[in-house]
Amino acid sequence: MKHPFPFSAIVGQDEMKRAMLLTAIDPSIGGVLVFGDRGTGKSTAVRALAALLPPIKAVKACPVNSERFDDCPSWAKVTKKTAHKIPTPVVDLPLGASEDRVTGALDIEKALTKGEKAFQPGLLAAANRGYLYIDEVNLLEDHIVDLLLDVAQSGENVIEREGLSIRHAARFVLVGSGNPEEGELRPQLLDRFGLSVDVTSPTDIDERIEVIKRRDAFENDNTAFMLRWQAEDAALRDRILKARKTLTKLKTPEQTLRDVAELCIKLGSDGLRGELTLLKAARAYAAYRDDTALTRSHIREVAPMALRHRLRRDPLDEAGTGTRVSRIVEDVLG
Amino acid sequence: MKHPFPFSAIVGQDEMKRAMLLTAIDPSIGGVLVFGDRGTGKSTAVRALAALLPPIKAVKACPVNSERFDDCPSWAKVTKKTAHKIPTPVVDLPLGASEDRVTGALDIEKALTKGEKAFQPGLLAAANRGYLYIDEVNLLEDHIVDLLLDVAQSGENVIEREGLSIRHAARFVLVGSGNPEEGELRPQLLDRFGLSVDVTSPTDIDERIEVIKRRDAFENDNTAFMLRWQAEDAALRDRILKARKTLTKLKTPEQTLRDVAELCIKLGSDGLRGELTLLKAARAYAAYRDDTALTRSHIREVAPMALRHRLRRDPLDEAGTGTRVSRIVEDVLG
Amino acid sequence: MKHPFPFSAIVGQDEMKRAMLLTAIDPSIGGVLVFGDRGTGKSTAVRALAALLPPIKAVKACPVNSERFDDCPSWAKVTKKTAHKIPTPVVDLPLGASEDRVTGALDIEKALTKGEKAFQPGLLAAANRGYLYIDEVNLLEDHIVDLLLDVAQSGENVIEREGLSIRHAARFVLVGSGNPEEGELRPQLLDRFGLSVDVTSPTDIDERIEVIKRRDAFENDNTAFMLRWQAEDAALRDRILKARKTLTKLKTPEQTLRDVAELCIKLGSDGLRGELTLLKAARAYAAYRDDTALTRSHIREVAPMALRHRLRRDPLDEAGTGTRVSRIVEDVLG
Amino acid sequence: MKHPFPFSAIVGQDEMKRAMLLTAIDPSIGGVLVFGDRGTGKSTAVRALAALLPPIKAVKACPVNSERFDDCPSWAKVTKKTAHKIPTPVVDLPLGASEDRVTGALDIEKALTKGEKAFQPGLLAAANRGYLYIDEVNLLEDHIVDLLLDVAQSGENVIEREGLSIRHAARFVLVGSGNPEEGELRPQLLDRFGLSVDVTSPTDIDERIEVIKRRDAFENDNTAFMLRWQAEDAALRDRILKARKTLTKLKTPEQTLRDVAELCIKLGSDGLRGELTLLKAARAYAAYRDDTALTRSHIREVAPMALRHRLRRDPLDEAGTGTRVSRIVEDVLG
Amino acid sequence: MKHPFPFSAIVGQDEMKRAMLLTAIDPSIGGVLVFGDRGTGKSTAVRALAALLPPIKAVKACPVNSERFDDCPSWAKVTKKTAHKIPTPVVDLPLGASEDRVTGALDIEKALTKGEKAFQPGLLAAANRGYLYIDEVNLLEDHIVDLLLDVAQSGENVIEREGLSIRHAARFVLVGSGNPEEGELRPQLLDRFGLSVDVTSPTDIDERIEVIKRRDAFENDNTAFMLRWQAEDAALRDRILKARKTLTKLKTPEQTLRDVAELCIKLGSDGLRGELTLLKAARAYAAYRDDTALTRSHIREVAPMALRHRLRRDPLDEAGTGTRVSRIVEDVLG
Amino acid sequence: MKHPFPFSAIVGQDEMKRAMLLTAIDPSIGGVLVFGDRGTGKSTAVRALAALLPPIKAVKACPVNSERFDDCPSWAKVTKKTAHKIPTPVVDLPLGASEDRVTGALDIEKALTKGEKAFQPGLLAAANRGYLYIDEVNLLEDHIVDLLLDVAQSGENVIEREGLSIRHAARFVLVGSGNPEEGELRPQLLDRFGLSVDVTSPTDIDERIEVIKRRDAFENDNTAFMLRWQAEDAALRDRILKARKTLTKLKTPEQTLRDVAELCIKLGSDGLRGELTLLKAARAYAAYRDDTALTRSHIREVAPMALRHRLRRDPLDEAGTGTRVSRIVEDVLG
Repeated sequence: MKHPFPFSAIVGQDEMKRAMLLTAIDPSIGGVLVFGDRGTGKSTAVRALAALLPPIKAVKACPVNSERFDDCPSWAKVTKKTAHKIPTPVVDLPLGASEDRVTGALDIEKALTKGEKAFQPGLLAAANRGYLYIDEVNLLEDHIVDLLLDVAQSGENVIEREGLSIRHAARFVLVGSGNPEEGELRPQLLDRFGLSVDVTSPTDIDERIEVIKRRDAFENDNTAFMLRWQAEDAALRDRILKARKTLTKLKTPEQTLRDVAELCIKLGSDGLRGELTLLKAARAYAAYRDDTALTRSHIREVAPMALRHRLRRDPLDEAGTGTRVSRIVEDVLG
Repeated sequence: MKHPFPFSAIVGQDEMKRAMLLTAIDPSIGGVLVFGDRGTGKSTAVRALAALLPPIKAVKACPVNSERFDDCPSWAKVTKKTAHKIPTPVVDLPLGASEDRVTGALDIEKALTKGEKAFQPGLLAAANRGYLYIDEVNLLEDHIVDLLLDVAQSGENVIEREGLSIRHAARFVLVGSGNPEEGELRPQLLDRFGLSVDVTSPTDIDERIEVIKRRDAFENDNTAFMLRWQAEDAALRDRILKARKTLTKLKTPEQTLRDVAELCIKLGSDGLRGELTLLKAARAYAAYRDDTALTRSHIREVAPMALRHRLRRDPLDEAGTGTRVSRIVEDVLG
Repeated sequence: MKHPFPFSAIVGQDEMKRAMLLTAIDPSIGGVLVFGDRGTGKSTAVRALAALLPPIKAVKACPVNSERFDDCPSWAKVTKKTAHKIPTPVVDLPLGASEDRVTGALDIEKALTKGEKAFQPGLLAAANRGYLYIDEVNLLEDHIVDLLLDVAQSGENVIEREGLSIRHAARFVLVGSGNPEEGELRPQLLDRFGLSVDVTSPTDIDERIEVIKRRDAFENDNTAFMLRWQAEDAALRDRILKARKTLTKLKTPEQTLRDVAELCIKLGSDGLRGELTLLKAARAYAAYRDDTALTRSHIREVAPMALRHRLRRDPLDEAGTGTRVSRIVEDVLG
Repeated sequence: MKHPFPFSAIVGQDEMKRAMLLTAIDPSIGGVLVFGDRGTGKSTAVRALAALLPPIKAVKACPVNSERFDDCPSWAKVTKKTAHKIPTPVVDLPLGASEDRVTGALDIEKALTKGEKAFQPGLLAAANRGYLYIDEVNLLEDHIVDLLLDVAQSGENVIEREGLSIRHAARFVLVGSGNPEEGELRPQLLDRFGLSVDVTSPTDIDERIEVIKRRDAFENDNTAFMLRWQAEDAALRDRILKARKTLTKLKTPEQTLRDVAELCIKLGSDGLRGELTLLKAARAYAAYRDDTALTRSHIREVAPMALRHRLRRDPLDEAGTGTRVSRIVEDVLG
Repeated sequence: MKHPFPFSAIVGQDEMKRAMLLTAIDPSIGGVLVFGDRGTGKSTAVRALAALLPPIKAVKACPVNSERFDDCPSWAKVTKKTAHKIPTPVVDLPLGASEDRVTGALDIEKALTKGEKAFQPGLLAAANRGYLYIDEVNLLEDHIVDLLLDVAQSGENVIEREGLSIRHAARFVLVGSGNPEEGELRPQLLDRFGLSVDVTSPTDIDERIEVIKRRDAFENDNTAFMLRWQAEDAALRDRILKARKTLTKLKTPEQTLRDVAELCIKLGSDGLRGELTLLKAARAYAAYRDDTALTRSHIREVAPMALRHRLRRDPLDEAGTGTRVSRIVEDVLG
Repeated sequence: MKHPFPFSAIVGQDEMKRAMLLTAIDPSIGGVLVFGDRGTGKSTAVRALAALLPPIKAVKACPVNSERFDDCPSWAKVTKKTAHKIPTPVVDLPLGASEDRVTGALDIEKALTKGEKAFQPGLLAAANRGYLYIDEVNLLEDHIVDLLLDVAQSGENVIEREGLSIRHAARFVLVGSGNPEEGELRPQLLDRFGLSVDVTSPTDIDERIEVIKRRDAFENDNTAFMLRWQAEDAALRDRILKARKTLTKLKTPEQTLRDVAELCIKLGSDGLRGELTLLKAARAYAAYRDDTALTRSHIREVAPMALRHRLRRDPLDEAGTGTRVSRIVEDVLG
């Protein structure tokens, strides 16, 4: 209905905004987890992101938003080859959504009686090439979580029922928000998110007043307010598009690989997903800054969001995991 | 069946009555939570409110009570453009109501075989532009709560089943009552209510006698009793209508924003919903008093009901959260 | 099948019998809860009450026992206007009854295909204008309890299924019996019963012998036994009818209201339901005694049954709640 | 298949056999509960009882074994008035039997389409005028237990489904066996059994050898063994028939009532069911012994089986409840 | 598929093999329970037994393997009277088998529409006159266990659904294996098994090498290996057949009965099933040894397997129950 | 979609890779369990294995991949006898797969109405002659685990529903991966896996850099990378094929059997599965090394992976089970 709050008009919350921008530059970074107090604007930010993202080219009526006609699955029976620009899809996964709603439903009877595959695509199809947003991700049912993890990893959604098999591309960035007071995430799931940020209520009085003023203007003087921020959102959108190009040209010095590996060993993060994500996030950040070479400073900036959720709890260390990452970053990278 | 007890005839319980009146002036304040002992007239007050509220203009037979013909959803197939006055809707959400009953039910088969959307609107449709009342809100099933929160926030009810999608406006004020002995509310849910009041049994003997007398008269001498209070209810209704107009003209001094922000930081309330609600409630109160400027005294009066349910429990402070709000209000606003 | 045991022939258990008689005089007192050891004749007493109650005038074949033709619901399709006398309905709500059985079942298909409302009334319809008896009320399923409370309060049964809505009057006196060893009642439910009595096995040997003799005569010499008590039951029935008339003429002195309020404040009973019920029960008792004025002695007699179940547990006071009521009654009323 | 073990050939276990015989003389005593170690012949005894019981006269093909044509329910559509002798029904209620299987099933569809009541009677119908045996009664599902209690008390089985109502007589003696190690019975259920006996493995070597010999003969020399005990079973059957007649003539002296009441007060048994059952059991025992007057000695003999399961647990008294009954019987009756 | 491992080629595990052989001689001994570590060849032994057992004569196509045409149930609609030799049935009861699969399924609809009983026999039918094997018997669902116990005791399977009733003989020897680490058996179930043996991994190195060699030969040199053991299996089969005849002629001296009873009393085994089983097992053993008289030495040999599972746990006695049996056997029999 | 990561390009994780190779040489070793931290490339390795395995000859369109036409089950209705080469099947068993999906589904109705067996083969059919991979095997539902164990042991999948019975070969190597933090495996299940390996994140910095580099090249320079490793994978494939032939010629010296038995006794591993598996794994390893004789060094190398999961936990020994195996191997084999 109403246009969402402009991304640029969000006061503070810099790390959250940066994490979202990085995945817009390189979606293969793999998802953002936003954890924090209620009322800190997590949902607002995700909905704002949807409006900020650059449009994509897609075949008309293709249920998985394919860019080229040949990539659109045959079951969709799309016949026209026309493509058009559509907004980057941002799909909301409601709590309590059924598995059929998520993966799509296969009408076995129709398939058997009419000899044709009758497939009703679901949210995973709609989210292809875009974002899948889960509010209160820590309250999601386990079997849906398992299903999402499988698809998010393989980039493909496979539905098999009684001998029939349907598959389609399902590449998307997972964005999950949650309130840590309401339950934690399984480590298995945590690890699958590329980046993770914590948000808190601002404690600076002027910042809070600014938040109220903008909200107030958004609600009571909507037209003027939207106009005021339109240009800033557009500039940000252009910057994302430019960074995507810069990214392909960046080279990674051997020493940076060594820095990244040493950092992860020191932090004792499980597995190797941390290294790979950190590298990608640093590159996307360098591209965002339009730098030509990947340096330690890029690593330093994105290390907390790339690694904080991969640390084991240390009962003797009262500092948060983000602080521990920063401390070790300083030790290793100086 | 019988006409409810008149709102004006309710003895005492001033804070509860005030909270309800404020949401009648500005529905965007966002819901009232009434917690208290059983037998303190919570249900009576809500039903009384229903009879007090000013009527609204609505398209005839429109299932979501739209004011203008063009806003009435197409699935409703309303053809006549006639509008009429109807009472402000107050819809009761029974414990144990099914999800279909709440959101409306989509008859997939009819839709598929006849090619038309067959949608049976639910309680959320009926509550549009009015009130949705939940008795014993703390006993409501979790999945219904989640659903209500989503709709209450977005102002829109979206029903999606097997590829069909129906949507309609669902803007309403949630009124929830509950007995804290029977279970608490999740903080997540608490925070979504704009205002919160506690009610207790009166301890003044004359007040109690007055309650009994009025109840007795209501039951045994109904006609005379209703006549006696009709005029007072009408006056209150006019005052609400007038306040709605006053509200649009009120300006908010910068200092008030600062006061509100400082108050919330001192109270340590999570997020920023507290500030926004407090501001709105204070404005509605100023409008109710027909004051032309928003002052500290307005803030002071409504701060407890706007903030008490947003505080964290402080195990070292035995005072109730309402008292803690008042104490800090005094510190900050003098 | 067999005629039940005569109410007058029940040995002892005076408080239980009195509570039942008071609700027969004024059904708006609102239900009787009988708690006690197994084998103390709780069920026997309820079934005896059924046979004692005065007959009512009702439209023939009307499923809700309406007195006047116009009150009989349209869905019942009663066409003849003839009325006749029927026994006051006493309906048994079996443990494990389905919701459909209790509220009535709506045949959606029939309604849709034949265009007519096909409603099969349930136990609530049958109990209108009479009694609804629940044995082992503390074992009843929660959702049935919630449903009963709603109907008992509103006096109306509303069945809504997929857009169809049926409603009919459902005014009845709830009589619940239970064994406290098998589980307590939620305070919320307790409060909805007007009166509450405890029953125990008699400890007087002659009383017990009398019980055995009468039971023995009832089983082995049924005809003579029934004849012997028929007259006493008839006299009691007449007295109820007379008391109903007396009740409408009773006036309540201001001082009595004050007594009642003071009593309830001293007892710290939650809410105001206690006062209202006590007043009604005292009036019904005065009418039963054919007294013309309401006095403190009437209050004194019925206070324990009207208030005992509204007290909070006091862990420091070992006396039962009934004793605590009596003690405070003595303090307040002298 | 095979004829059961003869009742007379059961070695020892006198109290169990006596309890069963008393209910055969007066079924209104109300059920026998047999608790004891596994392997003590509980099931064997019940099946033996089935073969011992005197035959009854019943209308041919009547599903509830009615004695007279007019008592056979109309839904059974029995047309021939012929009666014949059939064995006293002993029906086995299997663990895990569905409710439909127990109460009978109503074919709603048939009833609606063909306009006739289509009722498939269940185990309760088959058990009318006989015995209903439940092995491992303490493992029975709660809702079946509740159902059985209701029917056992009212003597009538009422099946109500969607507006249809079927009823038939269901008078039977419940015989339940169980192993106390596998779970206790709810006191509510315990109290509904008229008599209760404990069985244990015999500790006398000659008794055990006798058991083995008879079992061995029963298995390996069946024909001779059955012949050997046929006469004894027949004599016992005649004695039951004679006792039934004697019973109607017995008078009960006032002093006996007093003894019985005093005994139950001293024992502190809940409710009055204990007295009534004790009286009936003593009378049946007197009739079995062909005595003309009820004396203290009859009371003394049956008191343990009539009262032991009605005592509350006394944690300070290590003796079994049976012993406590005997001790108090001695105190009271001398 | 492949022929099972030869029974004679099983290394060690003498008690397990003996127990199985005894039930082959006298199936009325009633079942063998094999408890022990995983990997000790329990399943192998049962499958080996299947191949060892003597063939039986059965009517062709009779689903319950009846020996004579007249015994084959009418519902089976077997029309040819031809009999042939079939292997003794050994039926596997899979974990998680449905009740229908076990007892057989009754097709009500077919029965009603075509007027004929449409019964699909289950595993119990297939196991008649043979063995029913349950691997991991301690993990079996309770309702299946109850069902098996009932049938195993009565020797008859009765299926009753909505007024239809099917019955057929179901006499079989239950063989259950389990790993005590994964859960115990209810005493109720334990007692129903005639014999019980414990198996453990061999600790003798040469025995283990022999096991590996034979297994190796069985897998890699199957034909030669099977040939090598064929003769020994055949000899064992003949010995079983001979012992069955010897058994009918054995007489049991009075003193042996006394020994058996004294033994069981001393052991404090519950009930009398222990005595009866011990007697039968001892006789079968005597027959197996082709002895003409039952002596104390026969009792001594089989007492542990017949009684060990009927002892209560003695927390003060650390010896296993088998050892306790042996010790008392020595005391009593010298 | 994309070709998997090459098996040869996996850095480190030698034990895991070796275990997988051994089962490729001798599938009767029986499954590999891979337990370890998340992110250590478990899934990558299994998918890599799939691409490495030598192709097999199979009848075209045969749903169980039979090598010869006569082995293809009749229900498959394969009519052409043509065979072709297909990749060794590697089937993924998704968490939450239904039983029907795993075992195949039998369409009873079709079977009954058309008189033909309508069987839809499942994952077990597809996995025949190949690998069945279960990610997060410790989270699999119990009833699926039981089913898999049964089939894995018998090498045959039997589906029985209502009297119909379908069977087909289902010989496969189970590969399970899991994270020990998320739950352990039942010992019963552990024992069924032939080999078990633990994987951990590498701690050597150069090894980690190498991992990142190869991953990076695989993602960003796919074509060149695949080409680079193609040859190494091909060499490994040839070595497997050669080892399979070598294996049939290896003889096992008596002393090796003795070594193996002594080792297992010293380790106290339950049952005899340990010995048999160790022997097979050692032989496969000798064949892989192209050695002509089985020596102690082969035993030494594979003992940890063959035995570590068969040891009981020793609470006094802090070393992992793998270390305990190595220690005892040293003691016994020197």
